[in-house]
Amino acid sequence: MALKPKTRIQKKSVKVVSKTKKSKPEKKYVYYFGDGKAEGTGQMKDLLGGKGAGLAEMTNLGIPVPSGFTITTEACREYFRLGKKFPQGMWEEVLRNLKMVEKSMGCKFGDAKNPLLVSVRSGAKFSMPGMMDTVLNLGLNDETLKGLINKTKNERFAYDTYRRFITMFGSIVTDIDRKKFEDLLDEVKNKKGVNLDTELDTKDLKALVEKYKKLYKKETGKDFPSDPYEQLKMAIKAVFDSWYGDRAVTYRRLHGIPDDLGTACNIVAMVFGNMGENSGTGVGFTRDPSTGEKRFFAEFLPNAQGEDVVAGIRTPLKIEELKKRMPRIYSQLEKICNKLERHYKDMLDIEFTIQEGKLYMLQTRVGKRTARAAIKIAVDMVKEKLIDKKTALLRIEPEQLNQLLHPTIDPKAEVKVIAKGLPASPGAAVGKVVFSAQDAEEWAEKGEKVILVRNETSPEDIGGMAVAQGILTARGGMTSHAAVVGRGMGKCCVVGCGAINIHEEEKYFTVGDITVREGDFITLNGTTGEVILGQAPLVMPSLPEEFYTIMKWAEKFSKLQVRANADTPKDARVARDFGAVGIGLCRTEHMFFDPERIKAFREMILSDSVEQRRKALEKIKPYQKEDFIGIFKEMKGLPVTVRLLDPPLHEFLPKTDEEIEVLSKEMGVSVKKIKSKIKTLEEFNPMLGHRGCRLGITYPEVYEMQVKAIMEAACELARKKIKVIPEIMIPLVAHVNELKIMKDLTVKTAEEVMKQYKVKIDYKVGTMIELARAAITADQIAEEAEFFSFGTNDLTQSVYGLSRDDAGKFLPFYIDHKIIEEDPFISIDTEGVGQIMEIAVKKGRRTNKNLKLGICGEHGGDPKSIEFCHKIGLNYVSCSPYRVPVAKLAAAHAKLKEKGAELIRATL
Amino acid sequence: MALKPKTRIQKKSVKVVSKTKKSKPEKKYVYYFGDGKAEGTGQMKDLLGGKGAGLAEMTNLGIPVPSGFTITTEACREYFRLGKKFPQGMWEEVLRNLKMVEKSMGCKFGDAKNPLLVSVRSGAKFSMPGMMDTVLNLGLNDETLKGLINKTKNERFAYDTYRRFITMFGSIVTDIDRKKFEDLLDEVKNKKGVNLDTELDTKDLKALVEKYKKLYKKETGKDFPSDPYEQLKMAIKAVFDSWYGDRAVTYRRLHGIPDDLGTACNIVAMVFGNMGENSGTGVGFTRDPSTGEKRFFAEFLPNAQGEDVVAGIRTPLKIEELKKRMPRIYSQLEKICNKLERHYKDMLDIEFTIQEGKLYMLQTRVGKRTARAAIKIAVDMVKEKLIDKKTALLRIEPEQLNQLLHPTIDPKAEVKVIAKGLPASPGAAVGKVVFSAQDAEEWAEKGEKVILVRNETSPEDIGGMAVAQGILTARGGMTSHAAVVGRGMGKCCVVGCGAINIHEEEKYFTVGDITVREGDFITLNGTTGEVILGQAPLVMPSLPEEFYTIMKWAEKFSKLQVRANADTPKDARVARDFGAVGIGLCRTEHMFFDPERIKAFREMILSDSVEQRRKALEKIKPYQKEDFIGIFKEMKGLPVTVRLLDPPLHEFLPKTDEEIEVLSKEMGVSVKKIKSKIKTLEEFNPMLGHRGCRLGITYPEVYEMQVKAIMEAACELARKKIKVIPEIMIPLVAHVNELKIMKDLTVKTAEEVMKQYKVKIDYKVGTMIELARAAITADQIAEEAEFFSFGTNDLTQSVYGLSRDDAGKFLPFYIDHKIIEEDPFISIDTEGVGQIMEIAVKKGRRTNKNLKLGICGEHGGDPKSIEFCHKIGLNYVSCSPYRVPVAKLAAAHAKLKEKGAELIRATL
Repeated sequence: MALKPKTRIQKKSVKVVSKTKKSKPEKKYVYYFGDGKAEGTGQMKDLLGGKGAGLAEMTNLGIPVPSGFTITTEACREYFRLGKKFPQGMWEEVLRNLKMVEKSMGCKFGDAKNPLLVSVRSGAKFSMPGMMDTVLNLGLNDETLKGLINKTKNERFAYDTYRRFITMFGSIVTDIDRKKFEDLLDEVKNKKGVNLDTELDTKDLKALVEKYKKLYKKETGKDFPSDPYEQLKMAIKAVFDSWYGDRAVTYRRLHGIPDDLGTACNIVAMVFGNMGENSGTGVGFTRDPSTGEKRFFAEFLPNAQGEDVVAGIRTPLKIEELKKRMPRIYSQLEKICNKLERHYKDMLDIEFTIQEGKLYMLQTRVGKRTARAAIKIAVDMVKEKLIDKKTALLRIEPEQLNQLLHPTIDPKAEVKVIAKGLPASPGAAVGKVVFSAQDAEEWAEKGEKVILVRNETSPEDIGGMAVAQGILTARGGMTSHAAVVGRGMGKCCVVGCGAINIHEEEKYFTVGDITVREGDFITLNGTTGEVILGQAPLVMPSLPEEFYTIMKWAEKFSKLQVRANADTPKDARVARDFGAVGIGLCRTEHMFFDPERIKAFREMILSDSVEQRRKALEKIKPYQKEDFIGIFKEMKGLPVTVRLLDPPLHEFLPKTDEEIEVLSKEMGVSVKKIKSKIKTLEEFNPMLGHRGCRLGITYPEVYEMQVKAIMEAACELARKKIKVIPEIMIPLVAHVNELKIMKDLTVKTAEEVMKQYKVKIDYKVGTMIELARAAITADQIAEEAEFFSFGTNDLTQSVYGLSRDDAGKFLPFYIDHKIIEEDPFISIDTEGVGQIMEIAVKKGRRTNKNLKLGICGEHGGDPKSIEFCHKIGLNYVSCSPYRVPVAKLAAAHAKLKEKGAELIRATL
Repeated sequence: MALKPKTRIQKKSVKVVSKTKKSKPEKKYVYYFGDGKAEGTGQMKDLLGGKGAGLAEMTNLGIPVPSGFTITTEACREYFRLGKKFPQGMWEEVLRNLKMVEKSMGCKFGDAKNPLLVSVRSGAKFSMPGMMDTVLNLGLNDETLKGLINKTKNERFAYDTYRRFITMFGSIVTDIDRKKFEDLLDEVKNKKGVNLDTELDTKDLKALVEKYKKLYKKETGKDFPSDPYEQLKMAIKAVFDSWYGDRAVTYRRLHGIPDDLGTACNIVAMVFGNMGENSGTGVGFTRDPSTGEKRFFAEFLPNAQGEDVVAGIRTPLKIEELKKRMPRIYSQLEKICNKLERHYKDMLDIEFTIQEGKLYMLQTRVGKRTARAAIKIAVDMVKEKLIDKKTALLRIEPEQLNQLLHPTIDPKAEVKVIAKGLPASPGAAVGKVVFSAQDAEEWAEKGEKVILVRNETSPEDIGGMAVAQGILTARGGMTSHAAVVGRGMGKCCVVGCGAINIHEEEKYFTVGDITVREGDFITLNGTTGEVILGQAPLVMPSLPEEFYTIMKWAEKFSKLQVRANADTPKDARVARDFGAVGIGLCRTEHMFFDPERIKAFREMILSDSVEQRRKALEKIKPYQKEDFIGIFKEMKGLPVTVRLLDPPLHEFLPKTDEEIEVLSKEMGVSVKKIKSKIKTLEEFNPMLGHRGCRLGITYPEVYEMQVKAIMEAACELARKKIKVIPEIMIPLVAHVNELKIMKDLTVKTAEEVMKQYKVKIDYKVGTMIELARAAITADQIAEEAEFFSFGTNDLTQSVYGLSRDDAGKFLPFYIDHKIIEEDPFISIDTEGVGQIMEIAVKKGRRTNKNLKLGICGEHGGDPKSIEFCHKIGLNYVSCSPYRVPVAKLAAAHAKLKEKGAELIRATL
């Protein structure tokens, strides 16, 4: 390549003398808005807080907003830096801006004739409970009161306003117990023998104001500040101080909001909705927040202040009433809503006040909505060309979809929660309590809906569990038998509810002083773990058309694929219906829990020789094959990852003397021998014991049978021209040699079966990465594996040294006390477990660039974890069938967020 | 700095044409030695094998060695490459070299008048059982036999030699069962009615030779090869083939010796020690292999071949006898020994033959020796200036020292091993069997030595354990109560011996058809896990002076420091006596197992409120303090790392109904309540449960009490001018926040105590790294910790997902089948666990360069693991007191090997 001649330009070193003013640099601490022009914008949330930025933005849009100004978060930070002193020049700026508000509103702060009253409220970058409430009507004193009376020609209104102001100021700014004001009010009402505030007359209110002032003096040692400027100063300080209020600090800690953001302070001219019948106040949404329907959805209260709506003393009217009463205002509101939606490109909630026929918008922000509404609004807005599909996807929180996918307890219902356990399997269930699987089956046969309540469940209970609406256990954790089977069945399940005392024999349980007997109704909330007395109303939503549109888009914009964990043809069908592109985890052990099969399996365990074991296994093989045929058929050519036997053998043996005796008779094996076998198989730490491929290596005939069943199923279907892609997964590999040996066995067996059937199946052999050692030696393991599937449940247990079943004794404490941010079994612990996963991904791909990587732990359905999986470059996640939609949306989010698409989103 | 002008010399590119001969490159496959000159040297072990290199070296030293030659390992490799054919030219070389031997020895191979006979033997780089044995007297046939008769004038000798040759050749080269030759011999002897070979006359032997030839023909289908060259060819092939013999292959696999080394083949002129009274043969050592004493230590048999010494038919004479009989030869031998020692700079074993007054050395190699001898020889040789101190250290295998540190079963004794369990605590113990702790105490009081045999032990058994000579349990693993307490007490202990069936009530156990009753003697070998019937003789060596010299040198050349794990003043004293420079792990929980203390501790566990717990803890504090005072005093200013409470609380509660009832009465707490508490505390996986700092966080008052006890002990001693350096260690940290909280508590408590005592103590706070998560987030944790101590027992359990107590069901299988190289609980799994440790070391030092790093798992006493700890840069290892010497020597080895000092070692 020839080099182009370059003209070399030499830069002269010019010394630019910056002529900075020697005067003190002026910081701008206050931003004005009013009369259609604001100094700030909607983008300036960091500086003006959410509320201030919103007010500025609305003002700039030409939407009628009472004039006012915002003191910046920077001022707040300076205030604390200076040891709770206003930064230099701030107060002067406040005064200057107050003048501008006076000019705009045509009245004067502290003026005895035509006083300007203001509201003062906090407003941080993030909406935050525990910050200072609003102080309304600030600026009132005995002098300006007269002006207000003069202005409104309504003495009662003025005194009522004054009384409210002192209450708010006293309780919010100077922290007097609000109840003390209320007690005085009640005293007056009692004395007069009335019930409602509105029944008090001017005289009563006048007297009350005096009492309030006295109370103020008694509590604070000072007179109620009559100087409006003094009032303002105190209120601003109170706003700033509230940044470090207990609740605010706690909230920030809980939500990971930094302490050094500070809050802004908004001072806005008061407008009054309670100045007669041509006044009023209202709140609403630009679309229906429940259904998403495109219609102005609001309520309105004539001749009232915002406070009255909240207080619920009067029932607000539907917004249609406003249309009748003030058609011009209604139409103006509708236009504003459209304007706001077009501007913010989202559904908004709004607050407005009408003062003597003039409309003021007090606030707007993105409106909260149900999952159903979120979906409809997102899809509609794409149709309306307001937003693109990516933005639409980002508008829906993946977790929200869960609402649509399980029957839930009607959120409006009042329920009596009597206990709380672990939320093992989501959804809700209502039914009559029964205390044995047999009872459950008998009652269900008679058409009763039952909830099976047990100390813990065992394989024998499967029948009862299958017919029950929900399952409740007193013991066991998130991986207990009940929990695993419950999730597998998609059945609502609450486990480890230690608060309940079950008397299985006597057929009742107690919790505190409540006794619940067989046949009594209870309701379970599997999403929260709540146990509810009686029948709570359930809601079972049908899926709207827009749901499927969203799913289609999500798939289009995702990189991560979504598979499902499914052990039965039924689960497989659900998974496929929800758009899973394969099965990421098919556990084979649950297939053994069926009463007929477990007998053969126990026979296998109790065998003394390889020959005996093989004989027993031969009995099980047809069942396994049948199961696989069912699942493979449902998945129609999509890959199915089958995990070979994983749990320790003792899990399959009976626990109680009775059960042992039954087994002894059934199998013709002495009780002594069974007990001795149980003793031999007992483990101190079963989680770290003789399970997974350790069983496969010591009892190769078990895995051999399973591989045969898988491959025979695949071959039989292949002969019928049904494509099957089995992926055989070896669990609990710690050392590459374990995988080597099990892979050799698998390949040898598979080849034999295919030869016998004269069919070629496209199968893979891979492993789970669920031990730290496997992750750290992933380079070696990847040389033998065609795929890795991260078993993040066990990986978390092993890396964290945390038994999920036992962690209940301290993990909740850790989370409550913020010792750890989040339950590592819910979201992947990215700092610890996640780092180990990253090492495995890098090392694995280093030696096997075609390695397929997935995750099949329950984290596979958790949006945060899915984002992490996307980041570290996995190929797929696998989750329970009912979480597939959540996972698909989360996968799309992960990809879109990576591209910075969250910036597209309206910032409000 | 001024630059020196440089003369720039430009190298001319000169093309050197290498004038290689175009003729076929001649490989050299055979190396000659004889008459004081050898083609090979002692360095050429790779090519000539150990034996061949040794013969060459001796020849070069001018030591009389029969002439001969070595066929190289390369020839062997070629042989296999060519499909078991001699490489081209090799046989011709053999013939050429044979001529040289003939010339040197003055006789001819295959000559009927003066025949040369040779020995043929294999010799690989590493000495290896399973390789081909020696074939002596090769070259004999009916013709050369006459020559031998003629030469020796001893027909009987000649026929005896012939018979032996056919036996050896037939059984070793052509694989005929040796027994068939022996049967024929016996037949002859029986027929003649004699017992000894020597009682057979020439006629008998003549007849036997004919029978042997017939047997050979019957077995191989061929005549016995009469052509000496054919014999030689067959023998060489047999040597090569033996490289892939079953035993050799297995041995190589077990010892990690590559399969592609091949073996050399040595062909050496026969000399005869059985040619009359001026002939003889002997073996010996240059120093006493048992005591290390510097004296020629050998045995000798006149008029005999080497074979006869081995066969043990005649009792050999002490070498002093030789001095009397052949003073010249004896003096020559002594000189040769000195020469060899000066040359090889080590103690050697030798084999020699005297043929008609002429001495021949047949072999020399480094001599095996006892630990005691190894130490003495190493120290003596430094004094003699033969070797330096570093070499002296490398001459002693660390593990060998163990022999000196525990009483051991006399290795010469014949014992009856009836079962084998896990070697939980080394040493040996003899005593009468008892089946309860109470019996143990009662019997011990009466002066009986007892072995306590239990299914498993519990805290209540402590008293019985303390008085027993040794402990044997049927259940439990290497970290079971018995094992841990046993090691802590330095008491011989065998656990998990599943083969024995204990009937505690009836006071006997069975194993197979053997019944052992109360009062019967058994012997335990805690180093191998063997259970021996009866009283095996024990040897309890006292430590020689040289031991302490070696320890001093080891310390001097080590980088790693050695501390000890000690929980009691007694252990601390042992540790200090053995030269530990501190305590690396003082477990506080064993202090609670004392009957008086456990009561208070159980009271604490059963408490319902913090106040009650504090009250119970106050009762325990004086005990803890007392313990610490004892330990601190013993350690005289050396650092003591105290680990705060680690095990889950349920370990401290009683297990059986009886025990619960006793506790209930003692404490005035209902049985129901105790049972319910036990139920609550039960865990599925205690190893991953509510323990370590998780207890400290949920019950801070426990750690607070412990820190108080530690600091009060330290302060009290400081007041008495005794220096104490406590290092307080927080166990089971997974997340930095856990350490933060516990460190805050520790520092606050410690400062309070110091203030109260008005004393300043130099204390540290650190943590154990025993979970993968702690290792992977070590950078964060190091910011809070002053030291890390790797708890590699738990780290291995967590990283490997392996419960040590349960692994017995498959880990032995894994090791037997070479699925994993080594038990990861014995030597650190460097590929997995080790990598995690390295990550922790790097990350930890990154954020805290002063971080002190140690290891306190049982790997701290394992030489291989110590070498690894040295490599990754730890500061110290900590091991059980009795292993301190082993660890110190291993630490020195690690450092010396790093410097390539192993090259200093004589290569033989």
